[in-house]
Amino acid sequence: MLRSRTTVAVRYAETDMMGVAYHGSFLPWFELGRTALLKENGLPYRQLEAAGYFLPVVDMAARFQRPAHYDDTLEIITVIREKPVARIRLEYEVLRDGELLATGHTVHAFIDREGRPTRPPPVFAQKMAELFT
Amino acid sequence: MLRSRTTVAVRYAETDMMGVAYHGSFLPWFELGRTALLKENGLPYRQLEAAGYFLPVVDMAARFQRPAHYDDTLEIITVIREKPVARIRLEYEVLRDGELLATGHTVHAFIDREGRPTRPPPVFAQKMAELFT
Amino acid sequence: MLRSRTTVAVRYAETDMMGVAYHGSFLPWFELGRTALLKENGLPYRQLEAAGYFLPVVDMAARFQRPAHYDDTLEIITVIREKPVARIRLEYEVLRDGELLATGHTVHAFIDREGRPTRPPPVFAQKMAELFT
Amino acid sequence: MLRSRTTVAVRYAETDMMGVAYHGSFLPWFELGRTALLKENGLPYRQLEAAGYFLPVVDMAARFQRPAHYDDTLEIITVIREKPVARIRLEYEVLRDGELLATGHTVHAFIDREGRPTRPPPVFAQKMAELFT
Repeated sequence: MLRSRTTVAVRYAETDMMGVAYHGSFLPWFELGRTALLKENGLPYRQLEAAGYFLPVVDMAARFQRPAHYDDTLEIITVIREKPVARIRLEYEVLRDGELLATGHTVHAFIDREGRPTRPPPVFAQKMAELFT
Repeated sequence: MLRSRTTVAVRYAETDMMGVAYHGSFLPWFELGRTALLKENGLPYRQLEAAGYFLPVVDMAARFQRPAHYDDTLEIITVIREKPVARIRLEYEVLRDGELLATGHTVHAFIDREGRPTRPPPVFAQKMAELFT
Repeated sequence: MLRSRTTVAVRYAETDMMGVAYHGSFLPWFELGRTALLKENGLPYRQLEAAGYFLPVVDMAARFQRPAHYDDTLEIITVIREKPVARIRLEYEVLRDGELLATGHTVHAFIDREGRPTRPPPVFAQKMAELFT
Repeated sequence: MLRSRTTVAVRYAETDMMGVAYHGSFLPWFELGRTALLKENGLPYRQLEAAGYFLPVVDMAARFQRPAHYDDTLEIITVIREKPVARIRLEYEVLRDGELLATGHTVHAFIDREGRPTRPPPVFAQKMAELFT
């Protein structure tokens, strides 16, 4: 299992007139978690794209328990539980002071520059094989 | 069953460097569908909030089949299948020229100005009773 | 002078905890005005990009007189006053029921796929020559 | 003169199909600079709002010299040059590795809960008097 932890402060731009963070704001926060997890494991997403591999979201979900407020510092926990083969599933928890605000997941598929499904690059497959032994 | 249809053109701001609409952009489009469905059924969300009722998203999901591109005109189909009691579940389809790009749903709970769970306002309950007979 | 008029409804996602539209939300609305003006004059921006020409914003400004609220229908008036040569300057007015909410402008420069400054495509130069005689 | 420095990493969500950060993404970054500067000077914006004072943007501008890319770490320098009286003017510089990408400013006016212009709260006026002696 791969696990990463990062933090983010809620921006004013991310709130809505309900006075709390807009539900859609959690998706860029999940993305921060994803970016951190891949980077910490030697697979920066920026390099994947530079090499012609893209990881669009094919499936996503989120559940909201408690609202996040402007200027809150949130903790994003990102997890890959199972060795990714064709698809990558990431799970997320968003917490504030140890209290769970939201959970969610995204599933990603590899595509090439033309948008066609493709296998993961060898560097990715190798790294995952090492990490999930 | 309540059903509403609205259209939206993809904004440049809604694309990302993958060259297509960012997955998070679909959430405001779902919201357009929600806003239209409630308004067409005599329950504009703006009036619900003015009366002290709020409908935060407690659960959401989306699945993406095909990408949306800048300046595409998309059709948003929004459906409430079952009479909402404590919670409201809305389902969405996003299409371009009749081709399905994405599906999703959101679940909403009524809260009051203090953020506490509350019953739907009488006007909402009455209207839903009429519409789902 | 070229002039275009389009409308947009304020999305919930575009509001912030001040209860009104976030100031940054006006930029995608300016973009809607730009998209409409170019399309109405036979120069859809989508085709410019397909032909390898990009129009990044190099300069922008906005002044806010009155707030915009969720579900307001806004009118966006977009104007090109002078024939664009190397750069294009667009001016915007955002109104609600004839009342001015905000004004602004953006200045754009042509760049090519590599991000280098370039001349406008001949089709653009010709069209502008016709329109500004 | 008050001066603050903060950093931000460019999110994928903040890019557009031009392959770089959307120009509107700079506004939330300016906001991060503002939030940091006020907090470092003992005037967290969150407390101002809790006390019934709001600081909407009445005027803004930005100039873009070079694009920002996904996952770039940017430095935001925020400055208040003159003691704010009725209005506050903040100036921003966005840099990457010491290279200037963009400059901008925002002007803010104090309003109360009803949206009416108001004087700054005494705590704000006092603090500014101390800081600008």
